[in-house]
Parts: sequence; C-alpha cells; structure tokens
Amino acid sequence: MKKLVVVILALSLPGGRCAPTDPDVGIQYHSGGLSIDISVGRHLNASSCKQLKEQYNTKDDGLYYLTSSSGTEYMTFCDMTTAGGGWTLVAGARENNMYGRCTVGDRWSSQQGNDINNPGGDGNWDNTNTFGTPEGATADDFKNPGYYDITAEDMSVWHVPNKALHPTWKSSSILRYHTDSKFFTQYGGNLYGLFKRYPVRYGIGQCNVNLGPSIPVKYDLGSPDTNKLFYGPNSRGEFQPGFITFRAINNERAAMAICSGVKPTGCNTEHYCIGGGGFWPEAGPRQCGDFASFDGEGYGTNLGWSASKEITEATVLLFYR
Amino acid sequence: MKKLVVVILALSLPGGRCAPTDPDVGIQYHSGGLSIDISVGRHLNASSCKQLKEQYNTKDDGLYYLTSSSGTEYMTFCDMTTAGGGWTLVAGARENNMYGRCTVGDRWSSQQGNDINNPGGDGNWDNTNTFGTPEGATADDFKNPGYYDITAEDMSVWHVPNKALHPTWKSSSILRYHTDSKFFTQYGGNLYGLFKRYPVRYGIGQCNVNLGPSIPVKYDLGSPDTNKLFYGPNSRGEFQPGFITFRAINNERAAMAICSGVKPTGCNTEHYCIGGGGFWPEAGPRQCGDFASFDGEGYGTNLGWSASKEITEATVLLFYR
Amino acid sequence: MKKLVVVILALSLPGGRCAPTDPDVGIQYHSGGLSIDISVGRHLNASSCKQLKEQYNTKDDGLYYLTSSSGTEYMTFCDMTTAGGGWTLVAGARENNMYGRCTVGDRWSSQQGNDINNPGGDGNWDNTNTFGTPEGATADDFKNPGYYDITAEDMSVWHVPNKALHPTWKSSSILRYHTDSKFFTQYGGNLYGLFKRYPVRYGIGQCNVNLGPSIPVKYDLGSPDTNKLFYGPNSRGEFQPGFITFRAINNERAAMAICSGVKPTGCNTEHYCIGGGGFWPEAGPRQCGDFASFDGEGYGTNLGWSASKEITEATVLLFYR
Repeated sequence: MKKLVVVILALSLPGGRCAPTDPDVGIQYHSGGLSIDISVGRHLNASSCKQLKEQYNTKDDGLYYLTSSSGTEYMTFCDMTTAGGGWTLVAGARENNMYGRCTVGDRWSSQQGNDINNPGGDGNWDNTNTFGTPEGATADDFKNPGYYDITAEDMSVWHVPNKALHPTWKSSSILRYHTDSKFFTQYGGNLYGLFKRYPVRYGIGQCNVNLGPSIPVKYDLGSPDTNKLFYGPNSRGEFQPGFITFRAINNERAAMAICSGVKPTGCNTEHYCIGGGGFWPEAGPRQCGDFASFDGEGYGTNLGWSASKEITEATVLLFYR
Repeated sequence: MKKLVVVILALSLPGGRCAPTDPDVGIQYHSGGLSIDISVGRHLNASSCKQLKEQYNTKDDGLYYLTSSSGTEYMTFCDMTTAGGGWTLVAGARENNMYGRCTVGDRWSSQQGNDINNPGGDGNWDNTNTFGTPEGATADDFKNPGYYDITAEDMSVWHVPNKALHPTWKSSSILRYHTDSKFFTQYGGNLYGLFKRYPVRYGIGQCNVNLGPSIPVKYDLGSPDTNKLFYGPNSRGEFQPGFITFRAINNERAAMAICSGVKPTGCNTEHYCIGGGGFWPEAGPRQCGDFASFDGEGYGTNLGWSASKEITEATVLLFYR
Repeated sequence: MKKLVVVILALSLPGGRCAPTDPDVGIQYHSGGLSIDISVGRHLNASSCKQLKEQYNTKDDGLYYLTSSSGTEYMTFCDMTTAGGGWTLVAGARENNMYGRCTVGDRWSSQQGNDINNPGGDGNWDNTNTFGTPEGATADDFKNPGYYDITAEDMSVWHVPNKALHPTWKSSSILRYHTDSKFFTQYGGNLYGLFKRYPVRYGIGQCNVNLGPSIPVKYDLGSPDTNKLFYGPNSRGEFQPGFITFRAINNERAAMAICSGVKPTGCNTEHYCIGGGGFWPEAGPRQCGDFASFDGEGYGTNLGWSASKEITEATVLLFYR
C-alpha cells in the first residue's frame, strides 16, 4: 500500500454545477485507505435548508435537493436570508378556482364536493401524501416530504402572487412573516404533528372552545395593519393580526386549517382562514374549498366579508426552520 | 502508467449514508486503468428488491431506490423478510372516500363518474401511468414503474390500515399472504401483462364464464378463516378464502380487478373485490369506486353484504417477487 | 504532491449502465490536483436533447435524464434521429375520456366543468406546473420542466396511439411533422413564452381577428393530404393542412391552444384544435375538454364535423429543438 495525496480541485457533476471541494475533505487517507466525500451538484447531504446552511454554508435563496430521513431525495426552495435564513419550503396552498367548490385542485380541503359524509376531506394536513413541485408551487398545490419529515421549531409564511416564478417570489410577495418562539417544540415538531393533535375535520369541536394554538409572528414584509387590510371590513372586526392560528372552527362547526396572519376572535373564520375538512354546512356548497369563503360577498371585492383580490390570488407558501 | 492500489474505506455520499465498500470491488485496476463501482446512498444498481437482496445482500425491510430497465429511478418499499424476502412494493389501492362514487382519487376504477360510455374507467391496471409515493402509499393511491417493468413470478399482499407509516406497515397490518406457484410466468410476468390478457372493463364478459385466474395463497398473517370474517355473512356465502383472483365479473357485467384473499363462487363480487372499470349498472352510481360496494348494506357494518370497517379502511399493498 | 496518471476505463454507476469515459476526460490533473468528470448513468450534464446530442454525441432515440437550469433533474424522451435529431419531448396531450366534459384528466383545458367563471381553465399552457411521466405519456397527460425551461427554435409533433409504449412510438405513430423556421425565436422561445403572449382563455378575442401564429411544417410521416383526412369533411372545408397554429378562437369566443397540423380558415375550430380554456359556450358542456368537440357528430365517425377514431385516440406529443 502506497500513500498518495490527491486533491480534487473541481468536480463537474450531473446538474452542471462545479462543486468546489475542500482539498482536505475531498479525498482523505485513513490508515492507508481512501475516503471520498462527493457532493453531487445540489444534492448535498442535508435534510433541511437549515442543515444546508449550517453544514455547507449555503447562502443563496433558491432551489436545492434535500434528502429526507427515509432517503427520499426531493428538491425544494430555501430561504437563506430572512432572519438568519435556513427556511425550508414544505408546502404551498392556493385557490385554483374560487368558483369550484371542493372540486379538483382543492387538495388542502376536499376534491369530493361539500359532503357531510366526508368530514375530513382529502386529509392532507395530517398525512404523508405529497404533490406538486417547487417550481410549480404558485401554479398548483404543493407539499413535499419535508412537511412531515423535518423536525422544526418555527414557521415562516409568504403570500406570493399566483404564477410568479421562484426567483421573483420574495420581491413580488405581498406579505411575509415568521414565528420565533420555537412553538413547534410544543406541538409535534411540524404541521404533520400539530394537525395530528388538532384534526381538521367538520364537527370536531366548536368555535372558541376548540380553537387551536395562535402563535405571534414578526413581519418581514408588511405589518399587522397592512395584513389586516387584505381582508374585508367585517372580517377585520373579528380577528387580531400578528398571529398564525391553527385549526379554527366556525359557527357551523366547519374546520379550517390555518388563519395565516391573524387570530380569530369571532366565528366567521371561513372568510379569512384557509384549508379545511370536507364539509361547510352554511349555504353549501358555497364555502367549501381551499380558500373557503374568501368571496363571501363577491370575488375579490374587499367589501363586507370578502377578502381582497390580492390575497385571494396569492399562494400561501409555508416554510419550516 | 503507474500501478497503484487504493482502497476506498468509506464513501460518504448524497443521502447521508456511509456505504461500506469492498476494497476489491471499490477500486480495481484493469490493465493499468481504473474501474470504480460506486453505489450512491440507497441508489444501488438493481431493478427489483429481489435483485437488491441477491446482489447486494440487503436484509432490512424499508425504502430503497430502484432503477427500471428504461433507466427510471424510483423509490419503493422492499419486504426483505417475508418467506425469504425480496418483495417489491409496486402498487397500493385504497378507498379515499366510500361516499365518492367514481370521483377524484378512484384511480383504480374511474374518476369520471359511473358511465357506460367509459367502460374501461381510468385504465390504470393495464397502462404505464404511475402515481403517488411509497411514503404516501397508505394516504393516496400508489403505482410505480415496477408495476410494468419488473418481470415477476409471485405476488404478496398486505392489508394495512390507512395512514399507517411505512415503518409500522408490517406490524399494523391486518392480513398478509403471498402466492408461491410462480403463476406470473403463465400470465405475462406481472399485473400489467396479466390485465392486458384479462381487461378490466364493463361488458367484457359474464360472471363465472369469464372469471380470470384464481391463485392459491399462503398466509403470513391471518388465515383463510380470519380472512373470511373481514367480509359480510352474505359475501362469505359466495367465496372461498385462500386465493387471489383476477378480473371478476358480477351479475350486471361490471368488471372488478382483484378479489384479494378470495375466490368468488357467486356473482355479487362488488362486495368483496376491488378496483374495476368505469361502470357498474346496479343502483348506479352506488357501486362505482375503488372499493366498489364494500358498503352494500351500510359503511363498515360487516352485516349482510357489507365488509368490515377494518378491511374497508385498509390499503391493499401489492408486491412482486 | 505526486503526479499520477489514472485512467477510468469503465464506471459502473446507479442506473446500471456502464458509461464509457474518455481517459483524457475521465480523470485529469490540473497543477498537481485531480479533476474528475463523472457522468452517472444517463444523468449526463445537459438541459436538452439537443445539448445531449451535440455535447455527448448521443445518437439513440430513448429516455434520458436532463437537468433544467434550476437544477431539476427529470427524465424525458429524446428523438435523436428525425431531421438531424436533438428533439426533446416536453409535453403530451390526450383525451382520456371524450364523454367527460372538462372532468378529471382534462389538464390541457379544464378539470372544473364548463364554466364561464373559470375562463382560463387549468392554465397549464402558460404556467410552470408539471405532471405525468415520459413512460406514461400516452396513458395520461404529460408536461415536464423542459416545457418552460428550454429555449427552443423549432417544434416537432407526433400523433401516437394511446397506450403505445415509448420504444414503439415512432413506428406506431400515425402522423409526424416539424417546423424548421426557428419561429420560437420570435415567440418567447417556447410554448410557455408563446402562450404568455397569446393567452388561452375564453373571451380573449374573436375568430379570425385574434388567431395566433400559424407556422408551416414539414412532414416526417404523412403529408398534408393524409393529415387532412384525419378530420371530418366539414372540418376539411375550413382549414389548410401543413401548419401548426397556436391559440385559435371559435365562433363563440372559446379559445383552443393548438391546431396541430392545420391552419384554420373558418371558425369551428373546436372540431380540429386541441386544448383550451375553461369555457365553450356552444351546446355546453358538450365541447369542453382536451380534444374539445372532436366528436361533434358522433365519436370517431370521421363524418360531418367529427374527427377520425385514429386521431381522437392518439396522444399529441410535443417536442422542442
């Protein structure tokens, strides 16, 4: 056995990127043997953007491949700059068709019509089903393995205009905020764990009594005041901005998954909370869908109980750290 | 050209696993040149779990990447322990909503409603369409390239409670069995080939006359007696447990794909067989869907023609070897 | 630092293929260091089949992995032989169920029913959503990242019988043709860019006045005359074969995406153009769907305004170069 020092200066690999390698790490000898650490393109050995940042010192926002604890490789978007960076995009919820009431594309509520026999709807808030791609996240619903795989402490939310391309997400977003209380440590480590504890299901409880946790947020774009104005005047009268709230229940016992940006104090949560189970009793099927009844008094009017066109036509991107 | 012996002691690769390599295999010289066999993480060079077991001596149940004959890389679950192991998960069929009659999610029958004009339904039993992920296989329908790519001899079936996570599939399953007669060698090598010969299509034939093959099974969990009890007393009167049967046809000429665990002797197969074409004439649209009419006399009652709640809410995982 | 010449003769990698490497490229020394160019299986470093051909001299039609500009790795089919080769399959459109009017599977028009409130339908002609697989492209709709990522000059179209397997696509196709005028350079570089300029949307304009570009094609299989005969005699009276036309508008202001093979001179484009928005006013919902009203006067009759069975049951595969 002959000792040899070789140095990988540059490794041109699938994906077309040249991954500069540390000579000391690139190839090392151990007792006459050879150990190679190869990172293929953006396929770095990390299970979250946080790990990517900490371990590989990755600094740019953008798309990266992660590897889940089960070995699943998937690409997602990393926000490496907000409040220290290390945020992993795990899901995106959008309203593909406000006039389609629990029809195809309503994966965050139900694609089965408004149906009391299907109270949990599609069930994607607390299962391991995945769909969509990061590049298509503002064009169709999106959920990746990070949603259930990453053990997180905090959440960040971006409201990005539908069809925006990922390089412009940050600059085109209309609202961005994040928690910094490490609340997930008390609620199952991620949304999968949280919603196992707070099922999103028609009839699971009643308004006020069974509301899930409300976590204060810090704004990275916008403020409680600008947040408030995206929803109609009636809605503003029954929520407090500056929070992200989980599992809201309305007057008729329909369940919604996330009130993103606000904490309900009233029971008409269908006008400002998103996602949900498979049944909304009031005026059925009119409130059934991913963005429930954002169009309560007309599409995008921002009058009465109606949300603004801006928030109605924005994808809600959910990040973990 | 200088000869050199180098030994790769450990190779840390994307996926975060340390793949111990055989020094003699790791790097070899051939006539002054160098040949390297690199296995990246779980991306081993195998097209089935059987090959993974035989070639790489892989012994643990779990998720692995396979590569199909066309070069498609996909992850699936390998059962490496049952009856010698080497079983590849190729599909999962579940009823996402018993009350949705041939609606979204009924990929193993039809997502187009009960329709005589669409007799073959979605056609996934004999096409090369794929969907879902192994980690989400109990949360949504699943089919991978192995379904049509792997040339198999036998089949194994697990009935696993919906939403169970893959590490608990085996322990939480309610019924498991497999064939050991190498029947696939006579029927096209896999389900794709078998269903090309026995199309799943309304009106293709009549009950009893055109029933597809019934293959005896050995039970790995349960027995013919426990299998029988998962279906209602009326159903028990017209099937024999201990088989897996392909392409059943009922009284009204509707076609079902698999009677998993039983061999029909009567013609009300909609109460204990799964999958199918796109049209069930009787009481339309009530029998149309992935689990047809398991709820014939009420959901999960296990009375009359109704199946038990346990079997109705279990995903049918299909393996090849 | 010791200089050493090593030669990788053969590299056996995931995917099971032995990638013969150029000794001079395989491993090279640069100033005492080592640079390795590894191409994993079919994961070559190319973002299009054209680049694959030019850079790696790839000559065979078949499935290859490409890497998009964002680093997304995806597999697709390359036509390496037609008119110099280098054609990348980016999409496939088929009619899954002529009797399902804008139902599940109508991703190239709308899966939401015929609805004036949803004029753009699913919107996939000008978004970054993707779906399906190349191996399943004749079994379900297909769109990959190349659709929006590749900057192309020309287009090629294959009409391939549904459910045909990719090794037989070319030989079983019923019609093949391509442009050679580099028209994409004037229209946004690809279909994504083109349809951003010519939105496919009910009510966007009127027949004749707002027709998008018609580009002459050369036939690789068939001719203007055989092309013509795939559509009914009434249709033949109002189009000119030998073109591919984008964004047609009919009498009732419904929009269709592509008239593949023809240039409309009349306004009943629903009988020979495919894809579209989410609303066809005439005889609603009868004209709504991926293949609109190919069955205008009966399914597959090739009489009156009806297209032939052959063209109705063929997938339209779209290639870029």
